[in-house]
Amino acid sequence: MTSVEHMKWWGWGVEGVAFEHSNKPDFAPFVKQAVGLDLRKPAQAHLSFDELTVPASRASEEFIAELSTLVGQGHVTTDDQERVVHTYGKSIRDLLRIRANDLPRTPDLVVYPADEAEVASVVAAAVAADAVIIPFGGGTNIAGSLDPQPTEERVIISLDLGRLDRVLSIDEGSGLATIQAGAQGPSIEEQLGAKGWTMGHFPDSFTHSTLGGWVATRSSGMQSDKYGDIADITKGLRMVRPNGIVAIRPVPSASTGPSVREMIIGSEGRLGIITEVTVQVHRTPAVREVLGYFFPTWEAGLAAMHEIAESDASPSVTRVSNARESGFSLATRKASTGVSAQVTKGLMKVLTARGWDLEQLCLSFIGYEGSASHVRYEKGLVGSIVRKHGGIGVGKGPGALYDQKKFDTPYLRDFLLDRGAAADVSETAAPWSRLQEVYDAANDAANAAYDKLGVHGWIMCHLSHSYHSGACLYFTFAFITGDDPIGEYEQVKSAIQQSFVDHGGTLSHHHAVGVEHSPWMEQDISTEGVAIMRGLFDSADPGSNFNPGKILAD
Amino acid sequence: MTSVEHMKWWGWGVEGVAFEHSNKPDFAPFVKQAVGLDLRKPAQAHLSFDELTVPASRASEEFIAELSTLVGQGHVTTDDQERVVHTYGKSIRDLLRIRANDLPRTPDLVVYPADEAEVASVVAAAVAADAVIIPFGGGTNIAGSLDPQPTEERVIISLDLGRLDRVLSIDEGSGLATIQAGAQGPSIEEQLGAKGWTMGHFPDSFTHSTLGGWVATRSSGMQSDKYGDIADITKGLRMVRPNGIVAIRPVPSASTGPSVREMIIGSEGRLGIITEVTVQVHRTPAVREVLGYFFPTWEAGLAAMHEIAESDASPSVTRVSNARESGFSLATRKASTGVSAQVTKGLMKVLTARGWDLEQLCLSFIGYEGSASHVRYEKGLVGSIVRKHGGIGVGKGPGALYDQKKFDTPYLRDFLLDRGAAADVSETAAPWSRLQEVYDAANDAANAAYDKLGVHGWIMCHLSHSYHSGACLYFTFAFITGDDPIGEYEQVKSAIQQSFVDHGGTLSHHHAVGVEHSPWMEQDISTEGVAIMRGLFDSADPGSNFNPGKILAD
Repeated sequence: MTSVEHMKWWGWGVEGVAFEHSNKPDFAPFVKQAVGLDLRKPAQAHLSFDELTVPASRASEEFIAELSTLVGQGHVTTDDQERVVHTYGKSIRDLLRIRANDLPRTPDLVVYPADEAEVASVVAAAVAADAVIIPFGGGTNIAGSLDPQPTEERVIISLDLGRLDRVLSIDEGSGLATIQAGAQGPSIEEQLGAKGWTMGHFPDSFTHSTLGGWVATRSSGMQSDKYGDIADITKGLRMVRPNGIVAIRPVPSASTGPSVREMIIGSEGRLGIITEVTVQVHRTPAVREVLGYFFPTWEAGLAAMHEIAESDASPSVTRVSNARESGFSLATRKASTGVSAQVTKGLMKVLTARGWDLEQLCLSFIGYEGSASHVRYEKGLVGSIVRKHGGIGVGKGPGALYDQKKFDTPYLRDFLLDRGAAADVSETAAPWSRLQEVYDAANDAANAAYDKLGVHGWIMCHLSHSYHSGACLYFTFAFITGDDPIGEYEQVKSAIQQSFVDHGGTLSHHHAVGVEHSPWMEQDISTEGVAIMRGLFDSADPGSNFNPGKILAD
Repeated sequence: MTSVEHMKWWGWGVEGVAFEHSNKPDFAPFVKQAVGLDLRKPAQAHLSFDELTVPASRASEEFIAELSTLVGQGHVTTDDQERVVHTYGKSIRDLLRIRANDLPRTPDLVVYPADEAEVASVVAAAVAADAVIIPFGGGTNIAGSLDPQPTEERVIISLDLGRLDRVLSIDEGSGLATIQAGAQGPSIEEQLGAKGWTMGHFPDSFTHSTLGGWVATRSSGMQSDKYGDIADITKGLRMVRPNGIVAIRPVPSASTGPSVREMIIGSEGRLGIITEVTVQVHRTPAVREVLGYFFPTWEAGLAAMHEIAESDASPSVTRVSNARESGFSLATRKASTGVSAQVTKGLMKVLTARGWDLEQLCLSFIGYEGSASHVRYEKGLVGSIVRKHGGIGVGKGPGALYDQKKFDTPYLRDFLLDRGAAADVSETAAPWSRLQEVYDAANDAANAAYDKLGVHGWIMCHLSHSYHSGACLYFTFAFITGDDPIGEYEQVKSAIQQSFVDHGGTLSHHHAVGVEHSPWMEQDISTEGVAIMRGLFDSADPGSNFNPGKILAD
């Protein structure tokens, strides 16, 4: 069988790795006050795979045989666990469904082509047979971009790009790397890093997501302030369609009509199968530092991030958490050693003496990259802006810690689910002048939804990306679920999403549309904007063979 | 009648302004050696307007009356000069045709709506009457984006956006300005500047082009290295379509499927009429400087620009001319005063003593903006890179001069045309690693075309924009025309364009496609890329009412 590795069928990450709080003394009390969950109670055992009801594959023996001829024996499978792994992404809705044995429709077979030519032959065969093709990268999507439509009568193929995992070439003279779409984050950085390069793209899903998935969903990374969002990083690409290959060459900028590159970016498989992407890459910087800062209030932190974005400084990371999220971060620290605990205690005393309300304290991380002297220069520019807004630097320690554990948060979701609480995220971007309004509205919307549900819910926020004219706000929410976890989740999630579009924010800054966000498309990009996009999809895919129902519902 | 002002019907700019060489003693000898043209010979008189054969308008009295009801008496016209002014842009092909009384088809009427509501009513009426709509901004396009199709049997409306010329609002808290599409460059900067802001977009056509035109053609400005191309600057927009308005809200970045914003940018009127754009704007910088540099060779200049693009510096302008263009620039200087002539002579002596071949000298301009200390910091970073590549700084003088006359070049074209020589431009972008190859190929292609024509032709080049992974090369070519000026021009232009796409360059970095560049679309973005774009056009405009034949030929 294929050597492509997958995450747990029931949760995030690899088997054997899980969130652990026994070494984090402040965590249990924090969770108790945040959502009322008592961590001393035992976790619920979840279903074993054998308890799942997996629909039978609808693929005929002939079709399986045909595809096997194209990609080789062993690279086409109807195995139940393979099909379940390829059914959903990793949204809380996906996790709730799989834990509830809710599998109305799965892919009928999973195909692992070895290269672009095999992708092309599978696509041609699938369209000829009027089958549905859903491309699959790392399976990390949380917007429902991978869901097979429950009412789909045709054969559904999950086209797994996992074997297309190589950096094909680096144009060192241009800072461009051509990489196969199925390559995952760590593998890309390892292959590039061996030659002294980095792509600089580190989304939260980095450890398991793929380049093709990033492009197909308009991903952003933690260092996008410097390196750009994936739409900026993507210079060229190749996408397989039934009649041939779209080949966009890696030119730095072009005036060639409406951007086909920008039609493919974010297309979630609806226009074809992305096989190869040429991205801009950078020399590994001489110095890379993430510094921690404290601000006395959220408003002060927000104002500082805005002024940094307007300034001559260009840090790689600008992040500030609100007071609740700062409290959460501090609660997930490991038990401090005597010295570090003393330092923290001392610092808090100083801040209190300065008149800070420690309940309002906001933790910020700002990243710097470049030559030693450039990093020094940028830290100087940023430092004076931070001070102007009443903030103080707290050094490299917190930043290094953030850097180490930045990819661990998804494991916490499974931990909470095991204990009856659902946690998920909603994120948006809006102009600077409307950020506080969006922030207030989202908090109010979540709390109103919690009230309606009669639950003790939690919502926290950080600013995760800064631009000249606005920023991304990233909300995390959690509550103890009742009889209808998905229905309850949808109430909270919908309320937050609606608050975004009602107050000048977009339905998503970097998590894509899928089926979860498609109800807000018309409100976000207007009815006529949707009409243009629908025309694009219908003309490019008249038979609705490519991931139908995503982005725009049928 | 309308107060909207237009350029000369027969050439660039306003009546009464023309290129003048009597105060530029080196110019006539330069032109003599470059293209063999003797400027002592008298200029040819061009046609008077009365000598033109202007096709009659095909618009019915009823249709004119209907449109007059919508936009008011006096804002619909079938006047010959109005229709001629709205027939072409300002490419050399356009100028040759108008001078040759070659007007097979003009718009049948010109309509000047006052606002978006009037644009919407005109669009609805036009589509209901199965008329063709060609939007018109400043009329500066040089790719044939405005040409009525000669075989068009339907009524053609030139929809002039000139009355939509206001900055509607500035969101000072976000650095965003909402501006009407018909506003021209100087008016935009004046309205923004009065409140301390700048858009920072200065294309060569700046004095007469409009925001809507910039967006519809993917324009770039001279300071785009810092401010971004128009695609980066455009955050939100509104576009009128027959059934309603596409409204894209100004969010800094979004993950909402294929980018409708990026479909409209570059659409040249094929998807609808852009009426309003929300752009990012910046506080007028405290310091703005353009410094001149000399490099001993083109290769050295190119290498320096590349290293600057890779460095921690971020200048606003990076420009280097090849030896030929440097010679041209020096030849267009006004007669030097005694002192400045002495200084130049002295400098050249020093360079010769250093071993420079002055025939190879390349002139470069690099721009800096920001706080005084930031400009100082950036100049330091750039200065050491320049020195590393054997270049030297020549101070503010040449930069200030470049800054003053940067918008004057188009007048020179008319001057040469009056004397029997055609001059035009071709520009491309390519990865850094292929720039020298593209440069060599374009020069070879032009010279081969000249040989075939048996003319003494000229081609010169500058690098005009730098990016992390590549740059824009901008070629200017000129020759004395023979019996078939347009045919001869097309031979040279085609040879250069073909060399671009054959060597990894795009067919245009910032001049759009129109009809001049459409033959290379499949070679540039691939057959399947064109198929996707054609599907977009066909689905959005099933009746082919919106500027048909542009970007992709019918």
